[in-house]
Amino acid sequence: MSQAIRFRAQVELAEKVKLDVQQVRYPHYGRYLEEFVPGQVFVHPRGFTFFPAQMEAFARTYMQCNPLYVNDQYARASGFAGLVASPQMVFNVVLSLGVQNDSEKAMANLGYYDAQYLRPVYQLDTIRSLTKVIDRKERGAGKPGIVTIRTLGLNQNDEVVLQYERKIMVAGQGDRPPTTPLPPSTVMPAFPWVDAAEVALPEFPESLPAGLTGPNSCFEDFSVGEIIVHANGRTITDEHLPLTYAVGNTHPLHFDRVFSSGLSGKMSGDPIVYGGLVFAWLEGLASRDVSENSVWELGFTEGYHTQPSVSGDTVAALSRVLAAEDAPGDLAAKFGIVSFQLIGVKNVSAARAFAQYGVDLFVKEGDKKALAKEKIDAKIFEIERRLLIRKRG
Amino acid sequence: MSQAIRFRAQVELAEKVKLDVQQVRYPHYGRYLEEFVPGQVFVHPRGFTFFPAQMEAFARTYMQCNPLYVNDQYARASGFAGLVASPQMVFNVVLSLGVQNDSEKAMANLGYYDAQYLRPVYQLDTIRSLTKVIDRKERGAGKPGIVTIRTLGLNQNDEVVLQYERKIMVAGQGDRPPTTPLPPSTVMPAFPWVDAAEVALPEFPESLPAGLTGPNSCFEDFSVGEIIVHANGRTITDEHLPLTYAVGNTHPLHFDRVFSSGLSGKMSGDPIVYGGLVFAWLEGLASRDVSENSVWELGFTEGYHTQPSVSGDTVAALSRVLAAEDAPGDLAAKFGIVSFQLIGVKNVSAARAFAQYGVDLFVKEGDKKALAKEKIDAKIFEIERRLLIRKRG
Amino acid sequence: MSQAIRFRAQVELAEKVKLDVQQVRYPHYGRYLEEFVPGQVFVHPRGFTFFPAQMEAFARTYMQCNPLYVNDQYARASGFAGLVASPQMVFNVVLSLGVQNDSEKAMANLGYYDAQYLRPVYQLDTIRSLTKVIDRKERGAGKPGIVTIRTLGLNQNDEVVLQYERKIMVAGQGDRPPTTPLPPSTVMPAFPWVDAAEVALPEFPESLPAGLTGPNSCFEDFSVGEIIVHANGRTITDEHLPLTYAVGNTHPLHFDRVFSSGLSGKMSGDPIVYGGLVFAWLEGLASRDVSENSVWELGFTEGYHTQPSVSGDTVAALSRVLAAEDAPGDLAAKFGIVSFQLIGVKNVSAARAFAQYGVDLFVKEGDKKALAKEKIDAKIFEIERRLLIRKRG
Repeated sequence: MSQAIRFRAQVELAEKVKLDVQQVRYPHYGRYLEEFVPGQVFVHPRGFTFFPAQMEAFARTYMQCNPLYVNDQYARASGFAGLVASPQMVFNVVLSLGVQNDSEKAMANLGYYDAQYLRPVYQLDTIRSLTKVIDRKERGAGKPGIVTIRTLGLNQNDEVVLQYERKIMVAGQGDRPPTTPLPPSTVMPAFPWVDAAEVALPEFPESLPAGLTGPNSCFEDFSVGEIIVHANGRTITDEHLPLTYAVGNTHPLHFDRVFSSGLSGKMSGDPIVYGGLVFAWLEGLASRDVSENSVWELGFTEGYHTQPSVSGDTVAALSRVLAAEDAPGDLAAKFGIVSFQLIGVKNVSAARAFAQYGVDLFVKEGDKKALAKEKIDAKIFEIERRLLIRKRG
Repeated sequence: MSQAIRFRAQVELAEKVKLDVQQVRYPHYGRYLEEFVPGQVFVHPRGFTFFPAQMEAFARTYMQCNPLYVNDQYARASGFAGLVASPQMVFNVVLSLGVQNDSEKAMANLGYYDAQYLRPVYQLDTIRSLTKVIDRKERGAGKPGIVTIRTLGLNQNDEVVLQYERKIMVAGQGDRPPTTPLPPSTVMPAFPWVDAAEVALPEFPESLPAGLTGPNSCFEDFSVGEIIVHANGRTITDEHLPLTYAVGNTHPLHFDRVFSSGLSGKMSGDPIVYGGLVFAWLEGLASRDVSENSVWELGFTEGYHTQPSVSGDTVAALSRVLAAEDAPGDLAAKFGIVSFQLIGVKNVSAARAFAQYGVDLFVKEGDKKALAKEKIDAKIFEIERRLLIRKRG
Repeated sequence: MSQAIRFRAQVELAEKVKLDVQQVRYPHYGRYLEEFVPGQVFVHPRGFTFFPAQMEAFARTYMQCNPLYVNDQYARASGFAGLVASPQMVFNVVLSLGVQNDSEKAMANLGYYDAQYLRPVYQLDTIRSLTKVIDRKERGAGKPGIVTIRTLGLNQNDEVVLQYERKIMVAGQGDRPPTTPLPPSTVMPAFPWVDAAEVALPEFPESLPAGLTGPNSCFEDFSVGEIIVHANGRTITDEHLPLTYAVGNTHPLHFDRVFSSGLSGKMSGDPIVYGGLVFAWLEGLASRDVSENSVWELGFTEGYHTQPSVSGDTVAALSRVLAAEDAPGDLAAKFGIVSFQLIGVKNVSAARAFAQYGVDLFVKEGDKKALAKEKIDAKIFEIERRLLIRKRG
């Protein structure tokens, strides 16, 4: 149904409206430390409809090799309702939807914790995002504080597809004007985080499709303690600016050189690559060795960006097997759960980094001081992740 | 229905065909001044089918924050038939479809006037473009002339989705060979421009969706004369070359460095960013402050690119409220019309540009000489636009 | 159908798993010379579902001007079942799917031969790829050998959409560890290559759509021997790294600067543009002059990349008409077959290259020594291609 409306013709107006330098406002976004109140829930703007071409484009861009994310026929033959959005895309979108409110003023992303993927995102699903403030830690006058938040991604049926926690470093407001508020709400929005959440998996078919995945990445191929050095690296180009926009992240550090070059310290200079993209590339570089035969990414925790990356950096990845166990219940016949540590390095091949730094690459950077070990400048990322992986049978 | 055809095997031929340096042609496109005849109508080649992933990708790339362009569910809940193509995408595509004929030889785009969006573009719509020559102004031998053209974008039902006028600066043919002609036509194609055109809007629902748009950009939030300084800038990268292709623009100035560096004057050097993309980025940078709650972009006029941009430039935007009035008829209960002046600057933040140049940013560059004011080198764009914006109620 | 599964909570594990520098593996891909055995058939991983937005995006990126690839309505009016995937996209995807097995270790791609497009690829088609080893030529100890392979692209109905042959230069294994094997197979997979294959064309309508294609590229417009100098060039940017990923090509030479700068010789330095992309750009630059009115790309042969390209290079194209004949059978009433030689140059306009090198541009680089002619450094590509082109009638 449509209505035909005639509007008055547009006429030039600028000259006729008085110019007044005082009549000005500066909307700005994100929050200062004082603007986070534990218990508060934020509903994030916009939402994001997943279209299949973008799902495939995301998986391709970050070289996610699992056919579930690029081959609609394979996904259906595996029991899914259709092409599956790459977990990295879901994570990047859910996080980015919250940036305008949660972290557009953040000075640093300190860590990702307890991320759980709870159900598939399919084509035409529309994802929204909500955040709850868990904790605010002040560290004294003039010092930035630390805020702990939890974020949920919800689909159009209000089902949680992803939940995770992160910590961010945020400056105090000082004498600066407050940021743009969210719409006032008389009731606090529901925040359906569940600690021991169930995962909605498809009913898997008797036999999963064969021939389109590598032979060396089934459950039986992984033994605890094993280190896997992934062969190729990826040079990150200026593409990262539009890719940041593509997932909806609004932090100017990632795409506004006037802003980034005006900062002081380690972040000053060219725009910094949004960490979610770095994580996605590293995971993609690892994928044909570790996740091509996975049917579900369970989640990740203890994720830290230990050094920033900029355009021109080449990133590479290593994985280490932390655990391998049967899947629960009936799933055990076909699947096991493998936990990996994923490590990123930059401007050195993964093989050379391993030759140079050895197993110290797998020691958390935050623990190094206590262990009297040197931090590794070439190391950019560390995380633990769990996958549900097909058994060879 | 399909037919199975056997073709002769391909055999190598190049060696057997006589090489003759005289048997050569140089097809070239666009038109010289003499090749524009007022009254002439051109039907542009190719067309463009809008797929939803590209509609969303466009909106994301240029940071258009209105959920109508990125959230299918929101668009439907707002009364539209589905995801709505961003007005900037429609404009860029309709203009670009005409470049091969209208302006591939143009030396400059002098201005956009009287653009009117007349109906939504939805997924799977196929848009064609037509141009009519309105005026040709010669300025003496050896000098480029000025051509005024009107362009229409039509959907597959021959309905006009956008119409606008622009002026371009075009060199005379001199002793150069003519450009590639359009197919000869015995009848002049119809050109359904309507001066006081009706806009086909959806029937809006009783209540529009809430929660996914910001609280400070409803009709009531805008007061005439107010200046809004938009917080973030966007660094334009070499992405602009493929983005020019993405909308179908064929002018080599934007993607052929051999061509651009062979020019003389201000345009010489790296490829110049196609102005439509600059406009799109500026509008996107303004969008969360001014258009997130709009339900229709009525159109724009008096649009001028006052300085070119190249890869590496960071652009930022300011808006000024020029008018705010009720929508006509029954629409007034829910909507108002707000006119904005949109200004672009480069390589300076919008806040700093405002601190430095003040309200002179909002004086048209073309008027500055008469007003004895200095032109502003950092200013790249100026335009007036009108939006139909939701009332808070 | 879905099942709700509760997994144990993820706990941090890295500290608890013993670090052992000896427990390491280095999966690597591609094959060494000895790992190619004539007669062997490889089934390539992943597959690729074609979504319409990516089909259009590919055609736009490489400026393929034939409306069949960008205008769904036009494709249907031309007798096709919907938007047609650009032949260049099909070729790039089919080849890239095989890179991980066939050529991720290749030192050079020596040539493309006997490529035949056998049926359209439509939206939602899922393409897989298979390769058969045809020949292995050793050239002595310490020297790389030459492998001839044939590759097929199959759709979800096991119909061949494209078949072609290529030669690659591959180093011997020496004392290096073997590459990652394919899954063991007790039976050799079928390899449905057909030498004199039939092409599944649509039943074309009585009259093909008019007005959206140029007037100078119908069958009657091409005369044997004629050289066509295409007007515009295209500067290739760092976009080529993600574009290589976009088609699924896994060779690090194209996106890993640590790898590419560690090479010796001509390939050392910045990542080399994947040749399939160069071919696609050249074909796109030629398309509005030669293929806008084609209804089928029959195939190509004798394709050679004679110089590599890197980011920043500007490529341009020339075509030469090698043959023009009626289409077979009933098709002759509406269509002719035109064979073209397509030549690519870099960092010089096509017109200037022609002025400088004349018809020598069209002499195969590999024949120059025998003809006592100089090779042309600015020349990057040569190929012969055949198109089924509409007659003006």
